[in-house]
Amino acid sequence: MAKGASISGFPEWLPSERVVEQRVIDTLRKVFELNGFIGIETRAVETGASLLKKGETSKEIYLLSRLQEVGHESDTPIEERLGLHFDLTVPLSRYVVEHSGALAFPFKRWQIQKVWRGERPQEGRFREFVQADIDVIGAGDLPDHYEVELPLVMVSALEELRAYGLPKATVHANNRKLSEGFYRGLGLTDVEGVLREIDKLDKIGADEVARLLTETCGATEAQARACLELAELTASDGAELAAKFDALCEAHGIVKDSEAYTLARQGLDTLAMIVDEAAAIRPGSVIADLKIARGLDYYTGSVYETFLDGAASLGSICSGGRYDNLASQGNRKYPGVGLSIGLSRLVSYMLHTAGAHANRVSPAAVLVAVWNEEDRPAANRIANQLRARGIATDVAPTAAKLGKQIKYADKLGIPYVWFPATAAEGAEGAEPAGDEVKNIVTGEQVAADCTSWEPDTVVAQQTVEI
Amino acid sequence: MAKGASISGFPEWLPSERVVEQRVIDTLRKVFELNGFIGIETRAVETGASLLKKGETSKEIYLLSRLQEVGHESDTPIEERLGLHFDLTVPLSRYVVEHSGALAFPFKRWQIQKVWRGERPQEGRFREFVQADIDVIGAGDLPDHYEVELPLVMVSALEELRAYGLPKATVHANNRKLSEGFYRGLGLTDVEGVLREIDKLDKIGADEVARLLTETCGATEAQARACLELAELTASDGAELAAKFDALCEAHGIVKDSEAYTLARQGLDTLAMIVDEAAAIRPGSVIADLKIARGLDYYTGSVYETFLDGAASLGSICSGGRYDNLASQGNRKYPGVGLSIGLSRLVSYMLHTAGAHANRVSPAAVLVAVWNEEDRPAANRIANQLRARGIATDVAPTAAKLGKQIKYADKLGIPYVWFPATAAEGAEGAEPAGDEVKNIVTGEQVAADCTSWEPDTVVAQQTVEI
Repeated sequence: MAKGASISGFPEWLPSERVVEQRVIDTLRKVFELNGFIGIETRAVETGASLLKKGETSKEIYLLSRLQEVGHESDTPIEERLGLHFDLTVPLSRYVVEHSGALAFPFKRWQIQKVWRGERPQEGRFREFVQADIDVIGAGDLPDHYEVELPLVMVSALEELRAYGLPKATVHANNRKLSEGFYRGLGLTDVEGVLREIDKLDKIGADEVARLLTETCGATEAQARACLELAELTASDGAELAAKFDALCEAHGIVKDSEAYTLARQGLDTLAMIVDEAAAIRPGSVIADLKIARGLDYYTGSVYETFLDGAASLGSICSGGRYDNLASQGNRKYPGVGLSIGLSRLVSYMLHTAGAHANRVSPAAVLVAVWNEEDRPAANRIANQLRARGIATDVAPTAAKLGKQIKYADKLGIPYVWFPATAAEGAEGAEPAGDEVKNIVTGEQVAADCTSWEPDTVVAQQTVEI
Repeated sequence: MAKGASISGFPEWLPSERVVEQRVIDTLRKVFELNGFIGIETRAVETGASLLKKGETSKEIYLLSRLQEVGHESDTPIEERLGLHFDLTVPLSRYVVEHSGALAFPFKRWQIQKVWRGERPQEGRFREFVQADIDVIGAGDLPDHYEVELPLVMVSALEELRAYGLPKATVHANNRKLSEGFYRGLGLTDVEGVLREIDKLDKIGADEVARLLTETCGATEAQARACLELAELTASDGAELAAKFDALCEAHGIVKDSEAYTLARQGLDTLAMIVDEAAAIRPGSVIADLKIARGLDYYTGSVYETFLDGAASLGSICSGGRYDNLASQGNRKYPGVGLSIGLSRLVSYMLHTAGAHANRVSPAAVLVAVWNEEDRPAANRIANQLRARGIATDVAPTAAKLGKQIKYADKLGIPYVWFPATAAEGAEGAEPAGDEVKNIVTGEQVAADCTSWEPDTVVAQQTVEI
């Protein structure tokens, strides 16, 4: 990130870093579209009423006021004020309801946009960042198979980013129904409370979670221990998952013909389908991990978090799940399933830990030298010829000494310098009879015609290296 | 624009409209990068102090407050509060100064981002919209030739958009030095005042401007008339421009050895260079039009506005100019020249007046049919094979009757439907022995292998038509 960015929490990339972010965005978009997702962009603002619906993050909203309203902000109730969106899920829900008549369902959409969190500034927390989301929204109902397919789309997107230094990603999946069925089978009723405490497991440890479960969720020591046992369960195929889960149920007296077990089994079957399908396509890409709870209480089925090999401290870089009740219009519900990548944090990791970097700052492959300011129109004509043929080209800013022009190209990483034929007598350096072009990395210089010359395709490309 | 967008001034595109906007953005980016411009993105917020520096639009700022600060907003002086940027020029100036050590100068950058104006809601005014900017910033100085080249980059970008229905664009250029020299030659001293009134010419007419010039800028009737005569001057080549201008000076007694004429001549020479160079590359793309004043008082040299043939009511769709004093650090100035496209308004025009539309909503070229839910993994395998070969593919949402699946493809505009070989007995429609693929537009159906089949390249492409 650009050093000394003057407002804490609002990261800003230097041009060479932006090349990496742009490459990540382009790559995700390509994968999303290959999978048939439709791109949308929603406005940056929602009403306070819409933003405050969702519990957890309601404290982290930026509200807007027009300059003229300063001092009178409180005349308008918060619900009617405008605020910046803090994620892309709330706006999607609103968009789908608002434009339902114009959409084909199930509506598969991708969206890559900035979001804002009005947090107290603190080390390492972004208050402005980019999210990259995919969701599928059904009208009335939504088949479960999307709970299998969406994490796999994210897996293949993250797989593409490994070329730019991203470590292997593993999706950890769970299912709310499975957890709820198990907790109810144990006799616990505050399901959301239990999920909320379990979600803290990685942060505060098992002992502390056990204490909280007994203190705030009415669990006995034994119930708390059982919840923790469930949270420890992981499996990489459906059969293993079912066997381990059934053993746990038996150990804690949850019988198979109970309502609770039936509910849990429903979740388990979806989860088993996810890991088995994932294993068939990309072994090791998705595992069942029953401690995944996700704090947000709007999830109703599958939940996902994604971790990078060797980067546990980064936390989940791609999270989401199934939500059945986020959007509705009259009696009609719009259930959905989606995942969201915290893109800015990911790019930050790629840049600063994985060592991803642009091979050059400028998109230009060629810098046309200028011998004298009077020759500039000729240099521009050469540049336009190259551009018309798809070769990104810059022209030297001044008719400085040739060494200075080459230094300018070098600073921007432009690999080729073009020497127009119209070398004036007094010019330093080579005075070619016709145009020549020099690869300033290898030093190779050849005669060239701007209507036909082709750069080396590898050298010409602006790309991201590790 | 999506009908019934629920917050006035915050436009939001339907998916098919977003395809057009995305295509416009992609096209501009391509042209900017072909010309060696470097892409950056700045944070959406600046400090109040930074936003309030510039006169004209200071009244149209959205300030932010964290939810917790509601009721105490006024505890923080406006200068220290955060506000959303209202253009991309102020953020660029701040970015260049902040990161000057890490940039190569002259710094050529493109930037396509949303901006916000905290205006009173009114018909047809956007409060959130996308701008597409190019600027060149020098450290200390900046050669004049960029004043020639930047409008030509915009011309070639707008030219590319004609494939999507944009009418021919003409840049109207003027030069502040020319105007100032002329006004001073007439004996007028309130140069900024005169420019501000002249800028209203198209809106309120010559008589009203003449009245304002005499009432607010201390002009005599004759001086006001002379200013209006200058504003009526247009020329499509440098020689014509110089001849007309000199005739006007002679008529109003501005002599060639005066300081005022020397200043005007400096502006005239740059302007002549712009129109002549433009005429050599793209005849008719840039004309000298001396009524172009641009309200913003930070311009110090060339100023540009751009109009579309047959769309005068749209006003200028791409404006900008040279500014020498917007950014500085200690004694060092960062002069710049840049132009900005009001992209949202442009896209709105292309969609609703020029008839630009996506050939389809979905990026997918193929929909794989699903005979039975049990066959879904096989359908997914086919889809993944096609995707691995770069063919965007969707899979039918449910194993509905074939007619319904085809209807889904049709609604999304997906041209090909793929029939996997594993047709179950009971399935409607064809029961092919091997995989087959059908072009649902032409009805043509052929045997196909997902590891080798190639769609018709034209049919497969998601594009924008007119």
